[in-house]
Amino acid sequence: MTNNDDQRFMQRALELAARARGRTSPNPLVGAVLVKDGQILGEGYHQRAGTPHAEINALNTAGRERAKGASIYVNLEPCSHYGRTAPCALALVEAGVAEVVIATLDPNPQVSGRGVQILQEAGIKTRVGVLTAEARELNEFFFKYIQGGRPFVSLKVAMTLDGKIASSNGDSRWITGTASREYVHQLRNIYDGIMVGIGTVLKDDPRLNTRLELEGKRDPVRIIIDGRLDMPLDSNIARTGHEQRTLVFTAENADQEKANSLRECGLEIIKLGGNPDRLNIEEALDILGKMEIMSLLLEGGAEINSYMIEKQLVDKLYWFIAPKIIGGRSSPSPLGGEGIKIMNQAIKLKSVTTRHFDDDILISGYI
Amino acid sequence: MTNNDDQRFMQRALELAARARGRTSPNPLVGAVLVKDGQILGEGYHQRAGTPHAEINALNTAGRERAKGASIYVNLEPCSHYGRTAPCALALVEAGVAEVVIATLDPNPQVSGRGVQILQEAGIKTRVGVLTAEARELNEFFFKYIQGGRPFVSLKVAMTLDGKIASSNGDSRWITGTASREYVHQLRNIYDGIMVGIGTVLKDDPRLNTRLELEGKRDPVRIIIDGRLDMPLDSNIARTGHEQRTLVFTAENADQEKANSLRECGLEIIKLGGNPDRLNIEEALDILGKMEIMSLLLEGGAEINSYMIEKQLVDKLYWFIAPKIIGGRSSPSPLGGEGIKIMNQAIKLKSVTTRHFDDDILISGYI
Repeated sequence: MTNNDDQRFMQRALELAARARGRTSPNPLVGAVLVKDGQILGEGYHQRAGTPHAEINALNTAGRERAKGASIYVNLEPCSHYGRTAPCALALVEAGVAEVVIATLDPNPQVSGRGVQILQEAGIKTRVGVLTAEARELNEFFFKYIQGGRPFVSLKVAMTLDGKIASSNGDSRWITGTASREYVHQLRNIYDGIMVGIGTVLKDDPRLNTRLELEGKRDPVRIIIDGRLDMPLDSNIARTGHEQRTLVFTAENADQEKANSLRECGLEIIKLGGNPDRLNIEEALDILGKMEIMSLLLEGGAEINSYMIEKQLVDKLYWFIAPKIIGGRSSPSPLGGEGIKIMNQAIKLKSVTTRHFDDDILISGYI
Repeated sequence: MTNNDDQRFMQRALELAARARGRTSPNPLVGAVLVKDGQILGEGYHQRAGTPHAEINALNTAGRERAKGASIYVNLEPCSHYGRTAPCALALVEAGVAEVVIATLDPNPQVSGRGVQILQEAGIKTRVGVLTAEARELNEFFFKYIQGGRPFVSLKVAMTLDGKIASSNGDSRWITGTASREYVHQLRNIYDGIMVGIGTVLKDDPRLNTRLELEGKRDPVRIIIDGRLDMPLDSNIARTGHEQRTLVFTAENADQEKANSLRECGLEIIKLGGNPDRLNIEEALDILGKMEIMSLLLEGGAEINSYMIEKQLVDKLYWFIAPKIIGGRSSPSPLGGEGIKIMNQAIKLKSVTTRHFDDDILISGYI
């Protein structure tokens, strides 16, 4: 088996895994490819929490007889614990595979390495480390979530070249072109939740759904930070509360009657500590984690964006820049807050990549 | 002669022409390549106003005898008028060249086509249109200048990803990395003038010179917009007024004594209409044009930048984006002013290009 073959089969496992993006929470994305004599015998991926794991699907498509003595490529260490399904490591032992090739170990420190241990004790050859970086990026939501119980948070910004997210009187439609906006809907299709502040609701009256011509698309859970329950009952969000799950985080002392009206619209009201103008969003993230919301797309205004960055709650940035200028000393910027005083202490992005969507430029990176 | 050869020889003419970038004002950049039987016989370029034109230099390096019957490639139509030198079109006729290949006609509507006419009347074959776009870009300063008498103005901005050109307390060193900053010095080396407002002088105390390890580098003329003559006598600019030409534009009623002190530092004081807080910079551009300053790099703050954009005085943008965030609702943005109210009416850049300098991204385009 050449290095090249290893990468090819693992690449295929990653592709299969990626098909379920945004569908497996709180589980990771996993794909598996069963190979003998350089030929693929079977493939599978984990489609949804509660359904069979990737390895089982691959064994089933290959057929148990042919699986004996084969190699299996899987982008994450086979699980070693009894959950909703039996441990995959044991299933591979029972199937009699000869070799297991793994992109990356389980990120959960309490079980990391145990799947490999089970396999090795059964005399199965294991190799770890093919396309590791790609495998970690594919499951970046899961890796973050499993280690702290909070969702992976990505901040999405769309701004003009001169750093404005709206004109001085609030007009923001549209900054970016159709290709960029379509990509944002593709992100919404894979992130479990989408978060905005009430300011954005009042200003733009957004739907925050996934508008794609795509079979199987799904809307993210809407998460609104609304300290005083200012959400209008006739807003697009309240009017579609029965169609798309919506969580409204508010202050302890929020108006009970308004809360009840919003609940009648289908919205879930959740109370948080902190004053109404500065709710404790860390608490909200803990609650979202318990709800198995593993990833969050933040599409907020300047103040909520900078709150999240200051509190170090943002993991990734999607920063769209449209090559146009609008000016205006009072036109809002993507980040507000107090800001950092010394330029040398600015927060530097890591693993920066650049992508073009028609005329727009998307700069992505990690914090 | 194949199309391919045409492009190769014209490309060479453009390369030769470009060697004199920033050195020929108020003349254009011109290179010439003399070719016979697919072989280059001679090359030349215009080095400085008052010295021989490119065609003459090419004829001289080839030798008059060999030039007879040759083709000459030149990126701009040979001149047809008597200036500091005799018309090149006539020189080519006298030299007995067989063919003249031209990238683009003279942009001056009063003489455009006349050089070609002289050549054709003498029975010399002429072709126009090889690498035209490249030739126009190379001479974009000249094309703008010759048609309106005002310098070509480029706005250079360096900002963080979140659209800030300094922290909330004014710190701006450094936003971009060394590679970006070196490129800015390369720009200063080819732009005739560099313009800032007095605010930038008071805040950053810049030198505005060309800091490059490069033989033959030269500093741009410094142009300071200073309505009240607030320029400190101990600023870096005033202290180096005898080393680098510096023009200070101020209001009619500026303090005479301060003006005299600045003149003693070597600064030239030029009075403009308009109130001291909003001088008539269009008038300044007319004066700069008369001084044969053909190109201007604007490195201003938010207010002068947006004044220049609103008045449609900016031709090109060099927009450096450093992949870092600093936040701060009072951190300054690259553009201020009133701004455009409707996002759909934002000013769109044309011919946008992207370039990377280490981690920084440079977005360039035309207005």
